[in-house]
Amino acid sequence: MFFIGIDRKSAQSLSHQIYSEIREKILQGQLKGGHRLPASRTLSEELRVSRNVVVSAYDQLYAEGYLETKQGDGSFVAEGLHSLPENKDLLTPLLAPIPPMTLSGFDSSLIDFRSGLPDLNLFPAKQWLGHYRAVLDHLKAVDLAYGPPEGRWELRQSIAEYLKSARGLQCDPRQILITSGTTQAISLVTKLILSSGKKQDVILEDPITGDISRIIELNGGVCHPIPINQKGLDVRDISEDLSPGFCYVTPSHQYPLGGTLSITRRIRLIEYARLKDCFILEDDYDSEFRYDVQPLQPLYELDKNRVIYCGTFSKTLCPALRTAYLILPPALLETARRLKWYADLHNATLDQLVLSRFIDSGDYIRHIGKMKKRYKSRRSILLNALSLHFADSIEILGAAAGLHLCVRFPGQIFDRQTILELKIKGLILYPVAIHSQFPDQYEDTLIFGYGILSSHKMEKGIMILKEYLLKFPGSSSHK
Amino acid sequence: MFFIGIDRKSAQSLSHQIYSEIREKILQGQLKGGHRLPASRTLSEELRVSRNVVVSAYDQLYAEGYLETKQGDGSFVAEGLHSLPENKDLLTPLLAPIPPMTLSGFDSSLIDFRSGLPDLNLFPAKQWLGHYRAVLDHLKAVDLAYGPPEGRWELRQSIAEYLKSARGLQCDPRQILITSGTTQAISLVTKLILSSGKKQDVILEDPITGDISRIIELNGGVCHPIPINQKGLDVRDISEDLSPGFCYVTPSHQYPLGGTLSITRRIRLIEYARLKDCFILEDDYDSEFRYDVQPLQPLYELDKNRVIYCGTFSKTLCPALRTAYLILPPALLETARRLKWYADLHNATLDQLVLSRFIDSGDYIRHIGKMKKRYKSRRSILLNALSLHFADSIEILGAAAGLHLCVRFPGQIFDRQTILELKIKGLILYPVAIHSQFPDQYEDTLIFGYGILSSHKMEKGIMILKEYLLKFPGSSSHK
Repeated sequence: MFFIGIDRKSAQSLSHQIYSEIREKILQGQLKGGHRLPASRTLSEELRVSRNVVVSAYDQLYAEGYLETKQGDGSFVAEGLHSLPENKDLLTPLLAPIPPMTLSGFDSSLIDFRSGLPDLNLFPAKQWLGHYRAVLDHLKAVDLAYGPPEGRWELRQSIAEYLKSARGLQCDPRQILITSGTTQAISLVTKLILSSGKKQDVILEDPITGDISRIIELNGGVCHPIPINQKGLDVRDISEDLSPGFCYVTPSHQYPLGGTLSITRRIRLIEYARLKDCFILEDDYDSEFRYDVQPLQPLYELDKNRVIYCGTFSKTLCPALRTAYLILPPALLETARRLKWYADLHNATLDQLVLSRFIDSGDYIRHIGKMKKRYKSRRSILLNALSLHFADSIEILGAAAGLHLCVRFPGQIFDRQTILELKIKGLILYPVAIHSQFPDQYEDTLIFGYGILSSHKMEKGIMILKEYLLKFPGSSSHK
Repeated sequence: MFFIGIDRKSAQSLSHQIYSEIREKILQGQLKGGHRLPASRTLSEELRVSRNVVVSAYDQLYAEGYLETKQGDGSFVAEGLHSLPENKDLLTPLLAPIPPMTLSGFDSSLIDFRSGLPDLNLFPAKQWLGHYRAVLDHLKAVDLAYGPPEGRWELRQSIAEYLKSARGLQCDPRQILITSGTTQAISLVTKLILSSGKKQDVILEDPITGDISRIIELNGGVCHPIPINQKGLDVRDISEDLSPGFCYVTPSHQYPLGGTLSITRRIRLIEYARLKDCFILEDDYDSEFRYDVQPLQPLYELDKNRVIYCGTFSKTLCPALRTAYLILPPALLETARRLKWYADLHNATLDQLVLSRFIDSGDYIRHIGKMKKRYKSRRSILLNALSLHFADSIEILGAAAGLHLCVRFPGQIFDRQTILELKIKGLILYPVAIHSQFPDQYEDTLIFGYGILSSHKMEKGIMILKEYLLKFPGSSSHK
């Protein structure tokens, strides 16, 4: 008995239906090894389908090994196939939905002072598309093949040129490695330095962006957060016993405090690195936006053999581009290149070519200039609102650059409860304390991102905060 | 004495020149800590520049910490700054140029049978640009912010739909994680499985793509290559002592031998994974191109809890896109998502949205159909040329699918010398032996990629090979 049900109205081809039914019967043990299948002609007559339909189903079953030929005279079920009941146990924990990553700052009903996002409404989509079209117009087949792990030469040249003219930073384009964002850059540097036989200890500033220590740890580093102040990291605060593989710093605009590493401390840091024979990773994430003077000289300029410089397009263009770069001391280049290759071969090519044209055309510098004006005016509005409502009772930190500043409210404690109550009032605030291993030192300090909020929202937000603090002054003792 | 030389013809602003000169003098110890600088008015008169120029240079020096104010009445060089002579030692090994990655197959003077590349001349640039424009037209600011690590929902849905209709593979879009190519996919799976407390041993097929074992090792795996034959991996060849974390296999079209894992061995592999409580990573890199029957059922369909499926767009569209995906058992989802986040946050967003539209529009299936016809015809030309010149003296392996096949030349040895001599004749060939830990078994077998070569070149290449082998028959004993 060989029953196959086919459904002529189904979207699946008749051939696929026959294939599936026979396959199921074999896997479920209804058709045993050695069983001879009807000849294709017989089955096609039985099912009233064309013989090709059956032949095609049989071919598929042969190709997948369900059928085999014996003595050349028929189709037989292969030996040794038996049921594989689905293992249900593991499936059960399944489909709890994956919670989406929070993408706040875009919920129009809330005032969200989240930092680290540029104003994405002003992304130069028209110019970008123009360069994209030009790249496709000039495309060669080889551009679509596997590319070099260090990135496209065109883009590395554009970045070196840009850094020279706009930042006064001199490097050889061959020192540049294109990475998938700063996250990958930090991960590569960690692997790079630890694999070169250096100690696994890593010095970090505290407070710091939360993800940094996790990225370093996942790549084998052991993090040592050093409490810093407005002047940045002082190597004299590092325990003498430590002999780190590298120090991660944000000298131009410390995140989150916003301070600048003073030249005295920079020199001390370089001397420390030389003494300990370690490297320094300079994360220069938003230094393009410095409002009162030119962007500061990078630490990199003080010692091009000890400092690894990391720049990004996430704050100047957009995070969605996932493009950053490292400037590496020559001795580390070849290993870095291999690590990138074994991580993901290389960044996607078209975006690299488009970005190179975008920079070379001058559109990039123009965009930064435009955004700088915009952010400068937003910063003024925020500072004015803070001054209006709080006058001299607060202390502003790190307002000289970037897309955020910090405010200390002496005597105030922004604990979880306070933040929650303010959220209910429509105001989302970020305490520095969540970025620190020593939260007590920062319980009175908040981070205010001003890259993406409208003037109106910022002013309203500061007013809500003022009203709340008037009602519940001082510490969180009212709870 | 305070001498500053300025060059009015320089591209650098006067202000930057003054800043640089003072900065250098400080770092070189010519201006010592506590030294009082001339008032800006005095210096501007001396240099015959506007006072703003000097003020701006001083501002920059203040911002970077080179100057400080004392008692509010003047600009003083900060204390504790001293010379940092460049450490030349490390710089010396520098600028040996980084050798470019070989991008052969594009040198028109050579006949290069390299495998693994689709015909990039037929990339559907026009359609792609159309979808790119549509994505930019519909862009919201949030699309340019940081995105979800698992990838855009739109793309995950498109892939699930495509797999269902074109491959008969059923999965929930929530099980899909977008990765930066198969390289990153393998790296994530290795971390994922090893971090879940599984054993660090990994079973590999031998022969295999060279990079795979390196990627696995860099992420903490210990590779155990198991010699395979045309029927693929037989778990009975694995030492009983081993208890692997996972097995990496290419069941649809083994690389490089081209065989299909038979259903008997598939079932045995699944049972092995259940017995050993390990996972299977199914790399389905080019199964879309199967010429005589439909693409084979993936191993994944046999056990959705044990098999992690990996698909890629590198062979169907182009490698430069750096886009692949994993279908993960639900139990592994959350950890995979975190690992991707800490690797590079997520794939670039615009490409994800464009690819989603490209698939949804039907352009993707049409492109695959078109390419399949093209490759099928190239395969015929290659097979005909081989048959014409070698008749029955050779054995063709793995020609049923993909973009390459293998040829065994019984009695022939393709050692380094032979390959070099053929290269001099303009023919680049790839022995299977370079992909194996047991090269002796494969010294008579070559891989022929036919994705990108013209009919003419393939025919000429086979003729060159024939002539060479006629002249130097048998093993490499003539040398």
